[in-house]
Amino acid sequence: MMQDPVRVGLLGCGNVGSALVRLVDEHADRITARAGVGIEITRVAVRDVTRHRDVKLAPDRFTDDPSAIVHDHDVDVVVEVMGGVDPSRALITEALEAGKPVVTANKELIARHGPELFGVAAKAGVDLLFEASVAGGIPLLRPLRESLAGDRIHRVTGIVNGTTNYILTRMAEGGASFADALADAQRLGYAEADPTADVEGYDAAAKAAIIATVAFGARVRLEDVHTEGITGLTDDDVESAKLLGYVVKLVAVAEEIDGDIAVRVHPAMVPLHHPLAAVRDSFNAVFIEGEAVGELMLYGRGAGGGPSAAAVLGDLVDAVRNLVSGGKGATIGELVDRPVRPLHKLESQFYLLIEVADRPGVLAAIAGEFGRHGVSIQSMEQRGLGAGARLIFVTHRAREGDLAATVEALRSVEPVHRVGSVLRVMGDVG
Amino acid sequence: MMQDPVRVGLLGCGNVGSALVRLVDEHADRITARAGVGIEITRVAVRDVTRHRDVKLAPDRFTDDPSAIVHDHDVDVVVEVMGGVDPSRALITEALEAGKPVVTANKELIARHGPELFGVAAKAGVDLLFEASVAGGIPLLRPLRESLAGDRIHRVTGIVNGTTNYILTRMAEGGASFADALADAQRLGYAEADPTADVEGYDAAAKAAIIATVAFGARVRLEDVHTEGITGLTDDDVESAKLLGYVVKLVAVAEEIDGDIAVRVHPAMVPLHHPLAAVRDSFNAVFIEGEAVGELMLYGRGAGGGPSAAAVLGDLVDAVRNLVSGGKGATIGELVDRPVRPLHKLESQFYLLIEVADRPGVLAAIAGEFGRHGVSIQSMEQRGLGAGARLIFVTHRAREGDLAATVEALRSVEPVHRVGSVLRVMGDVG
Repeated sequence: MMQDPVRVGLLGCGNVGSALVRLVDEHADRITARAGVGIEITRVAVRDVTRHRDVKLAPDRFTDDPSAIVHDHDVDVVVEVMGGVDPSRALITEALEAGKPVVTANKELIARHGPELFGVAAKAGVDLLFEASVAGGIPLLRPLRESLAGDRIHRVTGIVNGTTNYILTRMAEGGASFADALADAQRLGYAEADPTADVEGYDAAAKAAIIATVAFGARVRLEDVHTEGITGLTDDDVESAKLLGYVVKLVAVAEEIDGDIAVRVHPAMVPLHHPLAAVRDSFNAVFIEGEAVGELMLYGRGAGGGPSAAAVLGDLVDAVRNLVSGGKGATIGELVDRPVRPLHKLESQFYLLIEVADRPGVLAAIAGEFGRHGVSIQSMEQRGLGAGARLIFVTHRAREGDLAATVEALRSVEPVHRVGSVLRVMGDVG
Repeated sequence: MMQDPVRVGLLGCGNVGSALVRLVDEHADRITARAGVGIEITRVAVRDVTRHRDVKLAPDRFTDDPSAIVHDHDVDVVVEVMGGVDPSRALITEALEAGKPVVTANKELIARHGPELFGVAAKAGVDLLFEASVAGGIPLLRPLRESLAGDRIHRVTGIVNGTTNYILTRMAEGGASFADALADAQRLGYAEADPTADVEGYDAAAKAAIIATVAFGARVRLEDVHTEGITGLTDDDVESAKLLGYVVKLVAVAEEIDGDIAVRVHPAMVPLHHPLAAVRDSFNAVFIEGEAVGELMLYGRGAGGGPSAAAVLGDLVDAVRNLVSGGKGATIGELVDRPVRPLHKLESQFYLLIEVADRPGVLAAIAGEFGRHGVSIQSMEQRGLGAGARLIFVTHRAREGDLAATVEALRSVEPVHRVGSVLRVMGDVG
C-alpha cells in the first residue's frame, strides 16, 4: 500500500484507550491488510498530559484540549473513549459535522442521545460506530445490523452486566449472601466503590436501550426501559430457583409484540437448560430470537480494556475501510417511532415467595386471591414450618398488571405475613 | 429511494433458496432500509422448471440454464445455493469475472477452491461472501473478518456439525448407543441415509478449513485438516466422560502455534464448565480465543433453510450496499502460506481406555510404557473386575507422537487385552 496512513484522534486514554494504542501498534500489519491502509494514532486528548502512560506514543501527541483534535485538519477519524455525556456529545457532533467518522464506546451517550447523533452522522454522510458500547468485546451490534439485516428479530435477552452476573454466580454457587458477594466483587475490581449503577440495573438499562434501537430500528429512550435491580434478592430466592430447576440472572429484554416494543431490565429465573443459564462469573451473553435465524447466542467478555479495545478496533477498521473506499458502513437506517408497550400489559410466568402463618386454610385464602385476579397457579410448594413457613408459587403466564393486583390484594390476606420476592420466570427454549 | 431495485440471480432453489425467496418477499421494507435500495430476485436456475415450488415467483423467472443467469445483463448479483463443486465453481468464477458480486452457501466449494475464488474476486474488485458456508445462521465469518479485524486470534474451537452433536447428546443424556442415536437422527431428518460425511467428520473438516482460512488469513487446504469421526466411540467412553466431569463432543480446532497453523477435527472430552459443553442437540457453536478480546462464543442453528437463508441474506444485503455505494466489503485480505504443524507435534491431554487382565503388576507394566515414552499420567481409575476390567487413564499434556508410540507399545504388553478409545481432553477456560 502506498497510501498515507489514516490519522486517528483519540479522545481519552484510560483502560480502553491505552489498550487500543497497544493493539494498533502491535498488530499494524494485520490492520493494514484488513483496512486497506495503515492506521496511525496521531493525537490523544487526556485530562492530564503530564501523567505517565504505558503507551508507545511521543509526548507531543498528547493534548488536554479534545476540541483541538476534533477540529484538527490532520485528524481523519475520531475515537471517543472518555465516557460521560459532556463534553463527549458536543465533541462527537462537531467531529461528524466536520466529516470525520467517529467510533465510540460510550453507552451512556448512545443510550441518551443516539438518535440525535445518528441523524448528524447520516446528514454528514459519515460513519458513527459504537460496537463497544454494549457487551464489550462481544460482536453484537454488527451482527444485529449486518448479519441479520434481512431477518425479523422477535426478542433479544441479554446478560449485559458482568458485575451483577458475578454477584449472582457467587450467590448461586458459593452460597454467599448478596452483601458478601458484592464485597467480593468490589475487592476483585468487578464492582465500583459505589455499585449503584450496576446493582440497580441502570448500566444494563442503557445497554438494553441501545440493543432495542439497533434490533428494531426504533427510537427507544432510556425512560422507556422498565428497570429493576438485584438488591432485593434474598438467599431464599436463589435457593428456591435451584430447587425449581432455575438460576437467577439479571436480564435485559428487548422485544417486539404485535408491532409494539417493550424493553426492560429485571432479575429473572432462567431454566437450567437455557443457554443463558450457563453464563457464569463476569461473562456476558446475548440471546437472540429471530424469525428465520431461530435462536442465536453471543457470549464473551462484556468489559475490560482488551475486549472493549478489540471492539473499538473492529469498528475503526470498518470506518477506515469505508473512508478509503468511498463506501459507507451499514447504518441502522432511518429510526422509527414505535409504540412502547407499558409493563402492566406484558405477560410472563412469575415466581412468588410468600411468608405465611402455618395453619389450615392458608392456601385456600391465597389461591382465592390469585383466582380472583385471573392468575392461575402452575405449582406451589411449602418450605419451612411454623413461624418460618413460606409458600413458593410459580404461576402460568399472566399479565404483569394482574399479578401486581394479586400481590396488592395478598398483602391484606390475614394469614400472609409478607409477600417476599416476585420474580419473572423465563420460558424454556429449543 | 428512487433507485431501481438490484436484480439477483439465484442458482438453486431447494431448502435454502426457497427460504431466501420468502425472506426477500416478506421483509422487503426492512431489506430496502438496510441495503439502501430494493432487492428483487429476477432469475432462478433449477434442475427441473416444471416442479412445483412454494415460492411467490412467476414461472417465467425459472430456467434450467444456470449459465444464462451468470451471463445475463439483467442480473446484478449472483447467489449460489446449489451446492457441490461442479458446476458451481465455473459459474461463480464466470459471475465474478463478469463483475457480479457473489454470495454462496457452498462449504465444499469454498473449502476446496476458496483461495482461487478469492483471487478471482479480488482481481474483479467485487465481493465474494460465504457466511452461510459455516455454521448456518451463526454470524461467524463476519465477526472474525470485521469485528476482530485488529485482534490476533489464537484458537477457534467449534461444534460445527449438528448431526453428530445430536447423536452425542442422545448418547450422553439418553444412554443410547451410537447406532440407535444415528437411527434416531436419520428418522428426524438430522442425518442423511448415507451419514458418512457427518459421522466421519468430513463435513466438519471442510468447515474447519474455512474457519482457519478466515481466522488466520492463511491458505489452508482440506488435506491439511487431520480428521477423525465419531464412529469408534463407545458407550464406555461416554460413560467415562461423565464420571470424569466431561462430555464428548466432535470438535473442529483451528489454531496458531508459534506462527504455524494446525487444523483438525476429532472427538474430544470437553470439561462440563466449558461453554461448549452446554451446546446440545443439533445446535452449533464456535468458541474463539483472541489476544485482546479474550474468550468469545457464538451459538445457534448450524443448518436448516431458515438459518442458512438468513445468513445468505445478510451477505446479500452487504454485497448490494457495497455495489450501490461503490464501496467494497471487508475481504479476508491477501492469503499467506503458513507452515502446517503436523499432528504428531501437537500437544494435548489424553484419555485412554485399556482392557486388561485383572491381576497384580498390570498397572506397573502399563505405567512403565507411559514413562518410557515421556507421557506422564494425571489420573488412573479401574472400572470393572476380572475379565471385564478396564483402566481409564488421563494423561498430562503430551505430544501426539509420544502418545501414539505409547499406544503402539502398550499393544505388546502382555496383560493388555486391547487399547480401546483414545480421546483428546480439552483444557478448562475462564
